[in-house]
Amino acid sequence: MIIQLKDKIADFDKQSIESVIQNAGYQFTEVKTQQKSYLVCIGKKEIDIRKFGLLKGVEDVHRVNEDYKLVSRKWKVKNTVIDLGDGITINNGSKTIIAGPCSVESDEQIRGMVEVLKRNGVGIIRGGVFKPRSSPYSFQGFGLDVLKQFYAVAKENGMKVITEVMQLSQVEQMYPYVDIFQVGARNSQNFNLLSALGKVDKPVLIKRGISGSIDELLQSAEYVFSSGNERLILCERGIRTYERAYRNTLDLNAIPILKEKTHLPVIVDPSHGIGIRRFVEPMSLAAIAAGADGLMIEIHNEPEKAISDGFQSLNFEEFESLARKMRLLSGH
Amino acid sequence: MIIQLKDKIADFDKQSIESVIQNAGYQFTEVKTQQKSYLVCIGKKEIDIRKFGLLKGVEDVHRVNEDYKLVSRKWKVKNTVIDLGDGITINNGSKTIIAGPCSVESDEQIRGMVEVLKRNGVGIIRGGVFKPRSSPYSFQGFGLDVLKQFYAVAKENGMKVITEVMQLSQVEQMYPYVDIFQVGARNSQNFNLLSALGKVDKPVLIKRGISGSIDELLQSAEYVFSSGNERLILCERGIRTYERAYRNTLDLNAIPILKEKTHLPVIVDPSHGIGIRRFVEPMSLAAIAAGADGLMIEIHNEPEKAISDGFQSLNFEEFESLARKMRLLSGH
Amino acid sequence: MIIQLKDKIADFDKQSIESVIQNAGYQFTEVKTQQKSYLVCIGKKEIDIRKFGLLKGVEDVHRVNEDYKLVSRKWKVKNTVIDLGDGITINNGSKTIIAGPCSVESDEQIRGMVEVLKRNGVGIIRGGVFKPRSSPYSFQGFGLDVLKQFYAVAKENGMKVITEVMQLSQVEQMYPYVDIFQVGARNSQNFNLLSALGKVDKPVLIKRGISGSIDELLQSAEYVFSSGNERLILCERGIRTYERAYRNTLDLNAIPILKEKTHLPVIVDPSHGIGIRRFVEPMSLAAIAAGADGLMIEIHNEPEKAISDGFQSLNFEEFESLARKMRLLSGH
Amino acid sequence: MIIQLKDKIADFDKQSIESVIQNAGYQFTEVKTQQKSYLVCIGKKEIDIRKFGLLKGVEDVHRVNEDYKLVSRKWKVKNTVIDLGDGITINNGSKTIIAGPCSVESDEQIRGMVEVLKRNGVGIIRGGVFKPRSSPYSFQGFGLDVLKQFYAVAKENGMKVITEVMQLSQVEQMYPYVDIFQVGARNSQNFNLLSALGKVDKPVLIKRGISGSIDELLQSAEYVFSSGNERLILCERGIRTYERAYRNTLDLNAIPILKEKTHLPVIVDPSHGIGIRRFVEPMSLAAIAAGADGLMIEIHNEPEKAISDGFQSLNFEEFESLARKMRLLSGH
Repeated sequence: MIIQLKDKIADFDKQSIESVIQNAGYQFTEVKTQQKSYLVCIGKKEIDIRKFGLLKGVEDVHRVNEDYKLVSRKWKVKNTVIDLGDGITINNGSKTIIAGPCSVESDEQIRGMVEVLKRNGVGIIRGGVFKPRSSPYSFQGFGLDVLKQFYAVAKENGMKVITEVMQLSQVEQMYPYVDIFQVGARNSQNFNLLSALGKVDKPVLIKRGISGSIDELLQSAEYVFSSGNERLILCERGIRTYERAYRNTLDLNAIPILKEKTHLPVIVDPSHGIGIRRFVEPMSLAAIAAGADGLMIEIHNEPEKAISDGFQSLNFEEFESLARKMRLLSGH
Repeated sequence: MIIQLKDKIADFDKQSIESVIQNAGYQFTEVKTQQKSYLVCIGKKEIDIRKFGLLKGVEDVHRVNEDYKLVSRKWKVKNTVIDLGDGITINNGSKTIIAGPCSVESDEQIRGMVEVLKRNGVGIIRGGVFKPRSSPYSFQGFGLDVLKQFYAVAKENGMKVITEVMQLSQVEQMYPYVDIFQVGARNSQNFNLLSALGKVDKPVLIKRGISGSIDELLQSAEYVFSSGNERLILCERGIRTYERAYRNTLDLNAIPILKEKTHLPVIVDPSHGIGIRRFVEPMSLAAIAAGADGLMIEIHNEPEKAISDGFQSLNFEEFESLARKMRLLSGH
Repeated sequence: MIIQLKDKIADFDKQSIESVIQNAGYQFTEVKTQQKSYLVCIGKKEIDIRKFGLLKGVEDVHRVNEDYKLVSRKWKVKNTVIDLGDGITINNGSKTIIAGPCSVESDEQIRGMVEVLKRNGVGIIRGGVFKPRSSPYSFQGFGLDVLKQFYAVAKENGMKVITEVMQLSQVEQMYPYVDIFQVGARNSQNFNLLSALGKVDKPVLIKRGISGSIDELLQSAEYVFSSGNERLILCERGIRTYERAYRNTLDLNAIPILKEKTHLPVIVDPSHGIGIRRFVEPMSLAAIAAGADGLMIEIHNEPEKAISDGFQSLNFEEFESLARKMRLLSGH
Repeated sequence: MIIQLKDKIADFDKQSIESVIQNAGYQFTEVKTQQKSYLVCIGKKEIDIRKFGLLKGVEDVHRVNEDYKLVSRKWKVKNTVIDLGDGITINNGSKTIIAGPCSVESDEQIRGMVEVLKRNGVGIIRGGVFKPRSSPYSFQGFGLDVLKQFYAVAKENGMKVITEVMQLSQVEQMYPYVDIFQVGARNSQNFNLLSALGKVDKPVLIKRGISGSIDELLQSAEYVFSSGNERLILCERGIRTYERAYRNTLDLNAIPILKEKTHLPVIVDPSHGIGIRRFVEPMSLAAIAAGADGLMIEIHNEPEKAISDGFQSLNFEEFESLARKMRLLSGH
């Protein structure tokens, strides 16, 4: 059960609501997001939630039996729209494309890319500067200074930046140069990082874990939401199965299921999903047809020379073809 | 390496080709299909295949290194089109819908369905009469007599019938009442059944195994082809993974990969895939967007009362909505 | 619910029992095995089974809610012992080793092996003559004639033979030359084959499917049992997962779980499981420590030259070391 | 290739070695652990490593082609022994048991347990105070103050403490009260945490990820080692597969494979593995038979009343039975 409190609730009324909850045998967690205040109540007894609706100071109340509560569509039926400013939104009716290089390599690389992206209506650019890599001897990204340059070029061109944050201590450092924080698959259950991002007033995109279940993804989102940040985006990026014909099993089944379970936007990353450049386009179109709210695509001016993930990055021509077909498809 | 022989090759020329193959250190299997004759050659040495192309009696020769040979697009670049007669084809440019009940329940059921199917341009009706079931105490299908009625109604209405064959001894019995033999996921590596279906002059649809790899599906098709039957259809129907939010992980990644690897038509069964009725439509559209040649959909006049698989069957209204959207989508 | 009927039950009494079952809203399947007669009853209502126990002609009655019934330990608490004659048994207190080549290659091969096996107290020899292979161009086994020789050598030496049957039509052919029929992983849900083996009066060993669940293995055994054959052996042989460091994930968790759920003997095939020769010994010992009733091991006089599966076959010295350690371990 | 430098190498000699490496087309990472100094060299060209062995200042050199280097047995053949002081070691010939509650609940709980542990020769006690939980509303552990009490009781009794660290900022806080830092399955690829633990002079136990590969586990260990800490322990705790009959698929295949690939100790956690109390004993014995260097077992005075994981915790009697059987088994 979730109880949304009125904005200007008297302390006395709140204490009174809390007593009623406890007397009903329920435990509660108080959640204050940047927008609203909630009491998330957990218990096993059957209760009539209507009596809570009548209490003074209660704005709304709903029963939510899932392990995730505030991200559930049973709590909030209307889609969450992410407004990034400057007219750039996610989940506001049209399909969003996020595109950019796996790793930000240089100022020139980004400048060369921006024109292509703008011509195709892309308002959000991705690019990694901290790269989680299985081996300590692999390239780990160019770090904060390059992020600053990356952000400057994007801003100059009216674009928004999304990039991966790998640890708590980076949140503050990266904050001025990021429009959306991305949590990678390997950190999908790094609960301390998730909680910290709940304190931030910028949107957070959470990738599904390498073998994360759909429910676990929703619970990870619940960590951020219940720590104070309602502006969340979920991202399907492929799961680990026995099949070896591609990089990961991009799980498009997750799309209609997530869209039913949650009010948050759901985007798909086919580049890390199927992981093979020439199959990124069909999987992108399939993701949109399945109901995804957008795509995150890796592109590179010369994929053959990319520092990382070149085998799954589109060149500009391939990207423009994809963007064109996507516009046609989502025109329906 | 595959060598296609000329239709009217002299015995002497054939023996001569075979000697050259053996002298090159290769083993060969002679394959006579209902259309052509091939020598499928296997060996490890590097050889110059051009010298085989010059031999008398050789129509064509190609290098194919995969474990599957005759079904490979390296052998045959052009799509295999399945012509079922009466103007009904698969893989001939337009998208095919196969639809019908999980189990054929009665004459009335089928008659009631035929009208809906025809109105939506569906030329092939599915329906099981032999059902492979995990438990020996579950409903096992109504058997041969009901197949005869099913086939009669379909024929009367100019429709083609596809149904599952579970064992070798059924092939002959079912033959007069079947237009396409279906091999189910559990029999995907029943090699004796596959070989027997190679002798039959009707098309065969092979489902991917429950945890079958894409390569194994192609090798299963190779069994049928190398036993004599070139008219094959592959079907993605979901794989077994750790995720429990749906029935199977419908693996749409398999579509662009199969379309590249093989010349055979690839269709998708979202009903057994995601296995949840209200998600069959988005997954169907996604399959088409990913490049599938068609769909196989379970429908029922009253899904709530179906003997089997009601939870994943569309009612007529839902099916017509799907068919309409699919026409719109594949109009591009 | 399972009702065991008395051996000499009057027709009238049986009909009376059947009426009571039907009046209780249950459906039943009559099962006559080579030993006993049962009525396997399925229904959803809560019933008091004691009233069935009082009916004339009823020997015993038990509630079994699982999808598998007759193979459940809820039905039969005592272990099923497989008596193969000549003092060779499975599940009779001591641990059983089954060993032999992947493929029977020649008379000499078997003769050379028999001495080693006998010296180590092995009474059952394995060896394939029909091999299920993913590719139609791979070696498919030497067939029936070699089985006859194999059986003759084994009999001469007082040993029992287990070999894989791949299809229904082979059952009759192979019958005279087989002591235990083996159903391979790919045929684990070939329900027609399983049912046919229910009519045979020789034991059947069923391997878990490539991605078969523990419950499905039990239901496959139920197919054979409910078709008339109680003498069954279950075999864990590894499942398909994402891990690529070995051939299959030998799932030793299945052992204590199967031993609790069923009265049938459970043996383990580490050769196909981990699939790497030098790791067969530790996995064998682990299987015994986990409670397995026996092992099935691939051996070869010269593994490097084996026609199939040489990389997972032990040579004689390695096998003797394993057998020695196993005796030591199971001495407890 | 790994080059171990002499302890007192002249700067000039070191620069000279580095030049030779670079001239050979290799990149290197300098690794200083608390024991030694290494140059880990990565490159693709074939080189004759003997010429590096002759350079002044080089102690030893080995070729290591795997993605993990310093943890490889190709680098160091001899087992790493973890000496915790007070005569308590891991991987020193005998099998180690680590046992304790899932969550530390109280001073009394620990005091009551210590006696049982000591009677069974257990020198290391486990107990969580920071618990990673999928849901933000679940119990998250009692935190630092309880750790202090836990450590005090253990110290008083001559026992060592292992507990999970969840984030970088906890490392320093927890340091005085921990003998072994544990990295949980969800943090198995939290590379920042791993690197930070490389700076610490206490041993680190790393659990395999929820669907982590064996190679990834070794690479995670490489992160800690290459950051400076050689005292590492690996822990198999079950992987995520399709099977639902138990909690996780405890993968005992990993044991002989890890023991061959690395010189680090390998222990097994059957409590989180199979996750069912009555099957912890057989899986423990199987782990030891497969070659594991030790076990980590959850126990509780009253499992039915445990705050977390009671269903997989042994009571004292069950634990003593297990410990007894393990001593018997490893007596061989």
